Amino acid sequence: MLRPWKIQLESIDSKSDTPLYMQIVHAVIHEIRRGRLSPGDFMPSSRELAESLGVNRKTIVLAYEDLIAQGWLASRGTRGTIVSTDLPEQSLEAPKAPEPTAGQAGFHFRAAPGVPFALSASSPLVLDEGSPDCRLFPYDVLIRAYRSAILRAKRANRLKYGDPRGSAILRESLVGMLKSQRGLALRDENLCITRGSQMGVFLASRVLVEPGDTVLMETLSYTPAAQAFRAAGATVIPVRLDRDGIDVAELERLCGEHRVRAVFLTPHHQFPTTVALRPERRLRLIELARRFSFAIIEDDYDHEYHFEGQPLLPIASYCPEQTVYIGSLSKLTLPSLRLGYIAAPPKVIDAMVHELMLLDRQGNTPTEEAVAELIELGELRRHVRKMKQTYTDRRAAFIDGLQRNFGDLAEFDVPDGGLAVWLRFADTAILDRIDRNQARHGVRTAQSTSFAVSPATERGIRAGFASLNEAEAADALMRLRKAAVDK
Amino acid sequence: MLRPWKIQLESIDSKSDTPLYMQIVHAVIHEIRRGRLSPGDFMPSSRELAESLGVNRKTIVLAYEDLIAQGWLASRGTRGTIVSTDLPEQSLEAPKAPEPTAGQAGFHFRAAPGVPFALSASSPLVLDEGSPDCRLFPYDVLIRAYRSAILRAKRANRLKYGDPRGSAILRESLVGMLKSQRGLALRDENLCITRGSQMGVFLASRVLVEPGDTVLMETLSYTPAAQAFRAAGATVIPVRLDRDGIDVAELERLCGEHRVRAVFLTPHHQFPTTVALRPERRLRLIELARRFSFAIIEDDYDHEYHFEGQPLLPIASYCPEQTVYIGSLSKLTLPSLRLGYIAAPPKVIDAMVHELMLLDRQGNTPTEEAVAELIELGELRRHVRKMKQTYTDRRAAFIDGLQRNFGDLAEFDVPDGGLAVWLRFADTAILDRIDRNQARHGVRTAQSTSFAVSPATERGIRAGFASLNEAEAADALMRLRKAAVDK
Repeated sequence: MLRPWKIQLESIDSKSDTPLYMQIVHAVIHEIRRGRLSPGDFMPSSRELAESLGVNRKTIVLAYEDLIAQGWLASRGTRGTIVSTDLPEQSLEAPKAPEPTAGQAGFHFRAAPGVPFALSASSPLVLDEGSPDCRLFPYDVLIRAYRSAILRAKRANRLKYGDPRGSAILRESLVGMLKSQRGLALRDENLCITRGSQMGVFLASRVLVEPGDTVLMETLSYTPAAQAFRAAGATVIPVRLDRDGIDVAELERLCGEHRVRAVFLTPHHQFPTTVALRPERRLRLIELARRFSFAIIEDDYDHEYHFEGQPLLPIASYCPEQTVYIGSLSKLTLPSLRLGYIAAPPKVIDAMVHELMLLDRQGNTPTEEAVAELIELGELRRHVRKMKQTYTDRRAAFIDGLQRNFGDLAEFDVPDGGLAVWLRFADTAILDRIDRNQARHGVRTAQSTSFAVSPATERGIRAGFASLNEAEAADALMRLRKAAVDK
Repeated sequence: MLRPWKIQLESIDSKSDTPLYMQIVHAVIHEIRRGRLSPGDFMPSSRELAESLGVNRKTIVLAYEDLIAQGWLASRGTRGTIVSTDLPEQSLEAPKAPEPTAGQAGFHFRAAPGVPFALSASSPLVLDEGSPDCRLFPYDVLIRAYRSAILRAKRANRLKYGDPRGSAILRESLVGMLKSQRGLALRDENLCITRGSQMGVFLASRVLVEPGDTVLMETLSYTPAAQAFRAAGATVIPVRLDRDGIDVAELERLCGEHRVRAVFLTPHHQFPTTVALRPERRLRLIELARRFSFAIIEDDYDHEYHFEGQPLLPIASYCPEQTVYIGSLSKLTLPSLRLGYIAAPPKVIDAMVHELMLLDRQGNTPTEEAVAELIELGELRRHVRKMKQTYTDRRAAFIDGLQRNFGDLAEFDVPDGGLAVWLRFADTAILDRIDRNQARHGVRTAQSTSFAVSPATERGIRAGFASLNEAEAADALMRLRKAAVDK
């Protein structure tokens, strides 16, 4: 019987993070690989090896069991344990740890349709779809809020599992904020915290839609919402859109022809075109929702950033019984905090919470309670007030830059609200060039096709003006111009 | 023409959080409700009212448009705006702000099957399913980690939208931890951060299962996983389970009869029974996975808390190509941080990330990077080492308490690992009494039926020993005993 163990003793370290048991497994595999243990060789008994290594016998038993499970050793019953005569395939390869998970899957799965996400390694200038400038967030305030939220939650032992609808403290703050600033008449049971507005849309799709149902969206819209509806089995039909918002006459016609369960809208600042849904169309939409019993999914993703006059009240503020209202704190705080919410009739919220339990059970309590503190202390309001001034200035400079660089190529309006401008191009060849050349010119925008709910319909560029300072934005627009005219 | 506006002036406050526009809307509704404005009355022109209130005319135009949309006012074209002759229904009710969202939904939705979650208002003693004691977490260390993570992320402008797979820093830390402590040979492309292990299961269900497929689970298991599989259209078939884990012979038979796409297991510390899947069964399971091309979904939810000998290595460490490995940081840190991860072959991860983009796009960056720091600084390891000692003591005291209170009623083993004990009862009448009487005796456990994948099969009590201190646990067990014997 071989006794190679003394040689391995130095590589076994009881203070290492690697469990002793695993170190032994590795050592045995190493010995087999380098040929010091051969197929058929008897291993020392567990007691013998335990004594030789100065470890608990149970550790050796476990190591042997695992080596047997892996196929390196084989049991010969009462006679002992041998090195397997049918070693695992990798045993003859180079004697380094294999990296097997980099390989192919040995089971069926539904592959992603194309690249699931795009992240630039070189991080050029990004003209995003209307994000805030995260560099301007008051981080010291956020850090203090985390600190005080964690300490308070600790005292109340509130950092274990909690309410799936979210921290009661944040829900209360949001109910107050939505009541006073947006006219939403909410109670606690109308509200559920989510991880951003996408989760709100996903949850809505799960409770509103069954396979075969129809969801209506504007021809140009927030396409990740369309993906969520389709994943729930819905047929998504695009509805014409003009500068007053969705075409309600076409909406009515489609309601007569299909089982429409929901209409997804961003009525405040239409995504991507930035137009507001006019009041008379809102009225008509509500009539249709009542008549055809569909839900208006109102995604009010950047309510506060309104620059001209006062923002229109959300549809949910005067017709809550037809509305699933989706909000986000991504634009008010930081996208990477992943905070959003849904307001809807209580039984709809209950149904969504049932689905939410399957997704992720609940949110991140320290973050929820830190942001509740930012709301309660007025920090959020102060920050938004400051940012509105900054973004008003950036908007003006951006429009100048657009006129300089795209005055001859595109049409665009100064948006009343929201953090982006929508560029329309009569000549789609220009869009082809922008899509194709932008990386080469060190700038990035969403592909011009990415806003169309159905492929091969309208295209355009949505250019955010908030996340870059004036110099960066000027540079980005100059580069975008080059991409547009470069063959 | 009425001019009631001067009376309302004091209620309009340009410094209020409520937009001016909305204050005017409320004031007009209030005037109509109290009867000072009647149906058919002409309103002042927008210019006139703007002057009288000292606000921008655009604000009044918006208020009127909104009041028209809500049905309070009506346009008479060039003649002006009147109070609607067909007022909204609520107009005659008490003159307080309505709370309409508390009402019924006016659209179709799929209601939740029963109460979606249970939260006790009186918070009695909870014998949970095996959570850590969140009160013992080093909060000062967590606060410092948040602080330094936020400052570092700010400098790199990394708190905007990021990689949907999670912060690169946390993924790197986890790859290192899983490699050295659990033998998982991972690269970056094998790993995706999730919001807890439930999201891992949900994502797995979305990429592994199509309607009509079969997923196998042990008769007693983690039933929220079964719900996720069923939501994806799978038939979930329970497989017999004994004290060595899943019955692989029955598993093989079922694979011959159904299109099995996945087997969900907690092989390390079986949930809820705490048994380990024996090595020879692991080998057999792997053979079957290869033969029938199914995925082993290995949920390793509390790997580190192993008290007897060294933990067995995960199946994913020696058969990664058949495995979707799901881990959680809920037991190592705090459940309310919502951090978990999936390790799988790269193309499977890509497919899951595609689904994840529909759910919540990405995780909470400050939390991910704070926990990465806890790993890198060794704080997490120190904490777990300390907790293992504490929980070893609590386990011993808990077993004593169980022997005192349930020695005559139930059967149970001292678990080698995990933070809970599984209690088997020959007499189900005792379980009925525990389920029924526990609230009255000020104690809470999961209902005894909640672990059965199919209703009306096995039952039992899973009692966690870690989250309560010894005095609390003794009290809880005494109360549970009373519930068990109380008619």
